[in-house]
Amino acid sequence: MTSDKRWLLPDGIDELLPDRASAVESMRRRLLDECAHWGFQFVIPPLVEFTDSLLVGLGADLDILTCQFADRLSGRMLGVRADMTPQAARIDAHSLGEDGVTRLCYAGSTLHSTPQSIVAGRSPIQLGAEIYGCADVSADLETIDLMLALVSQAAGEDRAITLDIGHVGVYEALLTELDTTSNSGEAVFDALQRKSLPDLDAAIGDLSAPLAASLRALTELHGAQDVLPRARTLVADLPSALQAVEEVQTVVSAVERAHPKVAIYIDLAELRGFQYHTGLVFAAYIDGVGAAVAKGGRYDNVGAVFGRARPATGFACDLKALTDAAAEGVLSPRRVISAPALFSADLESQVNQLRQAGCIVIRAHDAEHHARCREQLIKRGTDWVCEPLG
Amino acid sequence: MTSDKRWLLPDGIDELLPDRASAVESMRRRLLDECAHWGFQFVIPPLVEFTDSLLVGLGADLDILTCQFADRLSGRMLGVRADMTPQAARIDAHSLGEDGVTRLCYAGSTLHSTPQSIVAGRSPIQLGAEIYGCADVSADLETIDLMLALVSQAAGEDRAITLDIGHVGVYEALLTELDTTSNSGEAVFDALQRKSLPDLDAAIGDLSAPLAASLRALTELHGAQDVLPRARTLVADLPSALQAVEEVQTVVSAVERAHPKVAIYIDLAELRGFQYHTGLVFAAYIDGVGAAVAKGGRYDNVGAVFGRARPATGFACDLKALTDAAAEGVLSPRRVISAPALFSADLESQVNQLRQAGCIVIRAHDAEHHARCREQLIKRGTDWVCEPLG
Repeated sequence: MTSDKRWLLPDGIDELLPDRASAVESMRRRLLDECAHWGFQFVIPPLVEFTDSLLVGLGADLDILTCQFADRLSGRMLGVRADMTPQAARIDAHSLGEDGVTRLCYAGSTLHSTPQSIVAGRSPIQLGAEIYGCADVSADLETIDLMLALVSQAAGEDRAITLDIGHVGVYEALLTELDTTSNSGEAVFDALQRKSLPDLDAAIGDLSAPLAASLRALTELHGAQDVLPRARTLVADLPSALQAVEEVQTVVSAVERAHPKVAIYIDLAELRGFQYHTGLVFAAYIDGVGAAVAKGGRYDNVGAVFGRARPATGFACDLKALTDAAAEGVLSPRRVISAPALFSADLESQVNQLRQAGCIVIRAHDAEHHARCREQLIKRGTDWVCEPLG
Repeated sequence: MTSDKRWLLPDGIDELLPDRASAVESMRRRLLDECAHWGFQFVIPPLVEFTDSLLVGLGADLDILTCQFADRLSGRMLGVRADMTPQAARIDAHSLGEDGVTRLCYAGSTLHSTPQSIVAGRSPIQLGAEIYGCADVSADLETIDLMLALVSQAAGEDRAITLDIGHVGVYEALLTELDTTSNSGEAVFDALQRKSLPDLDAAIGDLSAPLAASLRALTELHGAQDVLPRARTLVADLPSALQAVEEVQTVVSAVERAHPKVAIYIDLAELRGFQYHTGLVFAAYIDGVGAAVAKGGRYDNVGAVFGRARPATGFACDLKALTDAAAEGVLSPRRVISAPALFSADLESQVNQLRQAGCIVIRAHDAEHHARCREQLIKRGTDWVCEPLG
């Protein structure tokens, strides 16, 4: 590496310079404040944990996604968190151990060993909110309600928002009908995710005709609300799948009332990126932005490995992506005032007053005014006064 | 590892539960807001960088302190930032490349491979502020002024604060007098840091008598302001050391005027923990807390490896340690209200109004009020009203 490239950042790793950084910080505060008003309590999970704790029960995807290294103190493997949701589940299950419903929120940098998509970075600033201890669909509803409130606030009044909603339960119910000894499960899942009928046909070739037809029909279960009656017909004989469809119906009806401007898109075959989810799954899109700006779902019993199986539902977003997707922030213009780099009592007192009143006061070292300054503090007679800078 | 220990965190790694987390978040906002009012612009440096960039020119200490692993994409070594100051220097030197004075501030989690002291954790949340492009002592003064303003604000009115101040230049000037071929430098430095006269005598045994006497005298140059005349006498023949003493004098005089309640302790032999510093060094202590809550100094030309040698001075603190050290935060008591987990238009509107007014409204799933709630929203006739909870 030549010395003139030492400023180079790794692919997918970015730094945020003042304008973008302050927009992200302002978004972070607004969203966390909103979470607090809903009763979600802020926690700060650790940057690294033993990989045994970070990854347990969460599948191979998260393992590959997590950057790992040997701990100099213990000799065991540590991982930099790739996802803060399992950390929140650990805090709920072990550290807090509360009875009843626990609501947690958090915000922090995460790290991925490889980008999750062509456009994604490798170090999202994850902000999320989770509800533990409530198995009822009302908790999913509250989660979706909060997610849409945050995304609406971020996007501004004029941007169209779409809620994508699905449910792991429909596919799971069909899956239990599969002959699991035939190893078709994984191939079927892959084909469904790609909505590839030829691959699906190949994968389900040896299945019973009615089940094969159901799986083919599942790939069509996406679109507007007419999806729900079709789904009811398809899974009429599968009680757990029917219950899943009714949960989607409950959410759709409630969101229509609470967020009448939000468009709703149902997709009962979409499971991509929902690694540890067990029930309703959902994502929010802002018009004109290709990827979901927030996503989440139900993930019951992840806490079991930490000593307590708890119902769980929640969502998370990447603050950087959400801020970039959001309407241009209207930053309140602040007065920026230059002050001499002296330390005299009367000047100090004037500078402190201006700063407390919300002005930015910048010291002029070497008697040079900073380029951001539009006014200067200057002594006229015995008083320090603000005057415009030429 | 048995499954009942999967919640275990590595030594020196902690998680922040709601009370402490919200105190840290509130402190973070207050301190960053204060930095903004002084014209320091917020940046978000990356969580990881190529170790070549993170560590270059910064010595073996930071190398050992940094957790490193191979990048799956590039095959090169990445490091998790152990210190954000060199990142800010890179941003100033390369990414911003501004002429004139640049002020940056930042806040984020860092990671140390081993604890820096018996009481320190391995993942401080570092908040810092840096001034680039001004070689004059007035920039050090502004830095110290801001550091004391932040620490005073954190500590509250009644806690005594002490400023420790030193200067690398006095020792450096004496060092250039050493016969560097004798390899005494490192041994002398070690002995000075431990203020161990026997070790110092051993290390300087083969030096000229006057220089040996000066180094011995240096270990005594700590205490109140009487240190400064003694230092002037000691280094009367060394112009760069004399200039260093005058810079300390300038700071002492200014701090006495701007922060009359802050006690000042001068130590011209204290260099421990100042790894890349080149001039004035300083630290702030809160009465009753053993370790410094903030520290910093001048570190000119660190940016040279990124293409631009710039004067630089700044400080940083560990937000967790500072929050723990601070006076108990007086959190404004908020109304916490329970609301039914229904979605009816009139209830929604009432809930939204209360949240916008600053109340916390928590949904009662399974009709169970959350333990934090002191009031409930209940329908009386056609209206939703707040009533105390039994």
